[in-house]
Amino acid sequence: MNVQSPIATAIPTGERPGSRKVYQSGRLHPCLRVPFREVAVHPSAGEPALTLYDPSGPYTDPAAAIDIARGLERAREAWVLARGDVEEIAARAVRPEDNGHARGRRLAPEFKSDRRPLRAKAGKAVTQLEYARAGIVTAEMEFVAIRENLRREAGQPFIRDGEDFGAAIPDFVTPEFVRDEVARGRAIIPANINHGELEPMAIGRNFLVKVNANIGNSAVLSQVEDEVDKMVWAIRCGADTIMDLSTGRNIHNIREWILRNCPTPLGTVPIYQALEKVGGVAEDLTWEVFRDTLVEQAEQGVDYFTIHAGVRLPYIPLTARRVTGIVSRGGSIMAKWCLAHHRESFLYERFEDICEIMRAYDVSFSLGDGLRPGSIADANDAAQFAELETLGELTKVAWKHGVQVMIEGPGHVPMHKIKANMDKQLAACHEAPFYTLGPLTTDVAPGYDHITSAIGAAMIGWFGTAMLCYVTPKEHLGLPDREDVKQGVMAYKIAAHAADLAKGHPSARAWDDALSRARFEFRWEDQFNLGLDPETAREYHDETLPKEAHKVAHFCSMCGPKFCSMKISQEIREAAGAQNHVESEVAAGLAEMAEKFKESGGEIYVETPA
Amino acid sequence: MNVQSPIATAIPTGERPGSRKVYQSGRLHPCLRVPFREVAVHPSAGEPALTLYDPSGPYTDPAAAIDIARGLERAREAWVLARGDVEEIAARAVRPEDNGHARGRRLAPEFKSDRRPLRAKAGKAVTQLEYARAGIVTAEMEFVAIRENLRREAGQPFIRDGEDFGAAIPDFVTPEFVRDEVARGRAIIPANINHGELEPMAIGRNFLVKVNANIGNSAVLSQVEDEVDKMVWAIRCGADTIMDLSTGRNIHNIREWILRNCPTPLGTVPIYQALEKVGGVAEDLTWEVFRDTLVEQAEQGVDYFTIHAGVRLPYIPLTARRVTGIVSRGGSIMAKWCLAHHRESFLYERFEDICEIMRAYDVSFSLGDGLRPGSIADANDAAQFAELETLGELTKVAWKHGVQVMIEGPGHVPMHKIKANMDKQLAACHEAPFYTLGPLTTDVAPGYDHITSAIGAAMIGWFGTAMLCYVTPKEHLGLPDREDVKQGVMAYKIAAHAADLAKGHPSARAWDDALSRARFEFRWEDQFNLGLDPETAREYHDETLPKEAHKVAHFCSMCGPKFCSMKISQEIREAAGAQNHVESEVAAGLAEMAEKFKESGGEIYVETPA
Repeated sequence: MNVQSPIATAIPTGERPGSRKVYQSGRLHPCLRVPFREVAVHPSAGEPALTLYDPSGPYTDPAAAIDIARGLERAREAWVLARGDVEEIAARAVRPEDNGHARGRRLAPEFKSDRRPLRAKAGKAVTQLEYARAGIVTAEMEFVAIRENLRREAGQPFIRDGEDFGAAIPDFVTPEFVRDEVARGRAIIPANINHGELEPMAIGRNFLVKVNANIGNSAVLSQVEDEVDKMVWAIRCGADTIMDLSTGRNIHNIREWILRNCPTPLGTVPIYQALEKVGGVAEDLTWEVFRDTLVEQAEQGVDYFTIHAGVRLPYIPLTARRVTGIVSRGGSIMAKWCLAHHRESFLYERFEDICEIMRAYDVSFSLGDGLRPGSIADANDAAQFAELETLGELTKVAWKHGVQVMIEGPGHVPMHKIKANMDKQLAACHEAPFYTLGPLTTDVAPGYDHITSAIGAAMIGWFGTAMLCYVTPKEHLGLPDREDVKQGVMAYKIAAHAADLAKGHPSARAWDDALSRARFEFRWEDQFNLGLDPETAREYHDETLPKEAHKVAHFCSMCGPKFCSMKISQEIREAAGAQNHVESEVAAGLAEMAEKFKESGGEIYVETPA
Repeated sequence: MNVQSPIATAIPTGERPGSRKVYQSGRLHPCLRVPFREVAVHPSAGEPALTLYDPSGPYTDPAAAIDIARGLERAREAWVLARGDVEEIAARAVRPEDNGHARGRRLAPEFKSDRRPLRAKAGKAVTQLEYARAGIVTAEMEFVAIRENLRREAGQPFIRDGEDFGAAIPDFVTPEFVRDEVARGRAIIPANINHGELEPMAIGRNFLVKVNANIGNSAVLSQVEDEVDKMVWAIRCGADTIMDLSTGRNIHNIREWILRNCPTPLGTVPIYQALEKVGGVAEDLTWEVFRDTLVEQAEQGVDYFTIHAGVRLPYIPLTARRVTGIVSRGGSIMAKWCLAHHRESFLYERFEDICEIMRAYDVSFSLGDGLRPGSIADANDAAQFAELETLGELTKVAWKHGVQVMIEGPGHVPMHKIKANMDKQLAACHEAPFYTLGPLTTDVAPGYDHITSAIGAAMIGWFGTAMLCYVTPKEHLGLPDREDVKQGVMAYKIAAHAADLAKGHPSARAWDDALSRARFEFRWEDQFNLGLDPETAREYHDETLPKEAHKVAHFCSMCGPKFCSMKISQEIREAAGAQNHVESEVAAGLAEMAEKFKESGGEIYVETPA
């Protein structure tokens, strides 16, 4: 942990335990530095270091100078400029309402920089989708391809054992495969041309399942430092993208601080800020205020916008008999607007205008599920699926404008209704990536909704969801603190990896097997370091067996030396060796015995004739 | 929290927050007092109190006098004696080796009582299975029937919406249904005639999914008070049965303390104590020592025994190439014995003798999965399924002797291989109840295995597993403390309830709906009290919004007043009312609009002809 900035003394930096930050360069784009976390194991294991996916950015690179007042290096800016299709523009001037009219000591400090925003030159198409369609393999695409392979070379062995429900996961990810997936709309690379700090990543059913963590100040609590710290903390834990769900004052300034320090894609829900600009009165929202907010955020570098354009006037009555009505904030705001004006949603009516703005910066759509169920009782109802159909229709409109799209999904869904969500989404939304919140599989456990929802998230991830939006233990109860963010990300990293394993993703199994071998061989340090959360694993172990000597003990605290099954298993292997049989002979011989036994009926208790 | 015993000052007593302990009597057996937890909601809700399943025993009854030195009341003893088929016998004398030769200050205090053990009279069949076959509806069966209905009367409405994969869950549980399920072997009521403190419960696919919590001292840590406290704590959190997995010294005495204070079934793994008796040398185990241990524990009142009789000599070589060998302690002990002697397991060869002992006390079998996979790599392999076939064979042998049986299952299994476990178990074991440990769906998260396994547990519970053995966050790392026990039980109560919901169990949905209504109506106190863990829910809420006033606020800390979707939803409902439409008319009218819109093609962006 290094402390480098007076504004946020707690920003966690330094490598993860037992890990080394390593980079791989590109072939098509040699300038790329694709980051990984390499975990070496004890020499006795006789196996190479394991490479893990690493979204934590420069914060885990001891060679990187971290100063959040300056922001991260903007390596990606050069790739964008090199394409020659963008131009610097005069930034939209920050207005008092952008920060909720905060003044004086209540105004969050401005992030100082002389960056000027970029925008597509007139007539130029600067989205990854348009490049992909044009056959161009961008630096972003090659970055993603390298990242997904976890340093495995083409042709190297891997284990592929799973059920992928019709996905098209390749044995090895090539830049061309990435391009093709993006061109088809089956994957997105959220990458605003103004987000030069970005390390690109892909969201798609045929890539590793990703995890999003939400942060954000609210009217109730708000501190710049806390939000930057929470963002860094979340990606250090493993979050692949961050959503800034801030409401209240200082939204603009805090977002700038986050973006300039954020190596992952950042998503927002622009209607939140737009509502602040009109004093919190939903009826007073206008297309002009919303449009202005889109431009403001696009110029800052937000990578994806949640837009609830599927909350249409005729669907609102379908929610009237629900147990929990409309539970999406954006959805309820738009529903209220529609009813107050007796008009169709301006998000729906102006959807093509929205596309044109987002296209100019390559902001991706995250089409919001404003009518998602907020309880088990409301799952898979008419309102939810009516909106999903509309999101499918809007997907095609966005694609027509060359804008990348993913689709948000529920919510609260009992296990037996989860698969239908995935199947309907694939059919209705033309294989655009699905991005779900949980789903929570029961409503009865406030305080544990990271678990109620990790169950649903693992399942829907297996079925084909591309990114899982985390839920913290504080869901429904309060605002997450640092520890809650960690608990949420951990539960969701588990769900995502369990999904990758079950899909048979070729990059998945090596991790489990490396850890299991370490477990069987009592390589305690390796078990900790290979674990999802090395610090916690070590801490739990040391609570029971604190001595250093126990780190090499051939038993553990659970069973003690006499009852250690793994120790006995090893003795069994050795015994087999000592009897001068090679293992395979023992196995073959005894398997033969077993076969004979089965042929004889497999019963030792033969019934005597009555 | 009352403090009543000097030996264990921390035993938690008193009602759960917002709850009242209530009892229902039987019709066939009017003496029964079947316990429930009743949660009243705010009068504004206009709905009756919710009844929840309550395994916590007298500890949550303010009228009960708790003194762990005296033990719980033995109400069930009268039912057993009334059947007239058991006799008091001279207790087997406690031997020094029963407590690992602990002496003086190292010897745990004896539990003082003049109880004499009961055993079936010669020629009498005292198992619930034999009664069920004889058409007798025991007090235990009626107790279970009442318990499963949660005070819903026959004919009262309920919601049934699920996929049960061929289970036969009735709309209403009658005592006769319980008898029939037990007679078929599809459910067990673990109920040793010497466990007079027991409040009976059922384990079966057509009943609510149950949760087991493991406790137990080990060679590393050991304290009587800790174990009794952990047991009480686990059932207070919601565990339905307890397994005492103690090893080391004082096993006998500690178990007596636990049993005399335990209202749930208690299970053990007798081979652990037998191994202690022979100094921890697996090769020195004998049938005689094992037999003696069974009698010792049966006389104490243990309700089910895990017996690894399926670890057969010919299967052991099938584990030689595994990544993690044999991970069951009992399984590895028996494997070592078999290899050392080059003989078939005495548990297998003496299985009928074991049945005869267990039959005399109504101890149920939990047929151990000694060859369960200990890693994702080893899931569903030949060793695991060979043993499962043998467990099916042994099930029939046990049934022939009138002994109740459940079957233990894995372990570590990726999601896509879970259903095969359930399907094979149902086929191989003739629908005997399945009792699984997890399964863990990935190996990569030591410190979070309550979550990796709750995912698998929820799924396999949905598919048909009758009881889920919990996993705590300390799994693979250390011994669980009180907080770990709670975290493990909570994760598993979630998994079990999510499974009940997905199966469409008629007792499941009311809980979710009551909590969701409380959530929508901002009844904060009701949300806490109805929650799985009221204390934690309240604590999390108060961290952000501590003021009492906020308990009635029509918004919460997550979104603040302006962004509260539920508040807006309620305004939408009211708006609809104010416009002089009854809800249904609005709904019908707008649904019609929506339909027309769909008929017209459902597109607002009509492509202009090229």
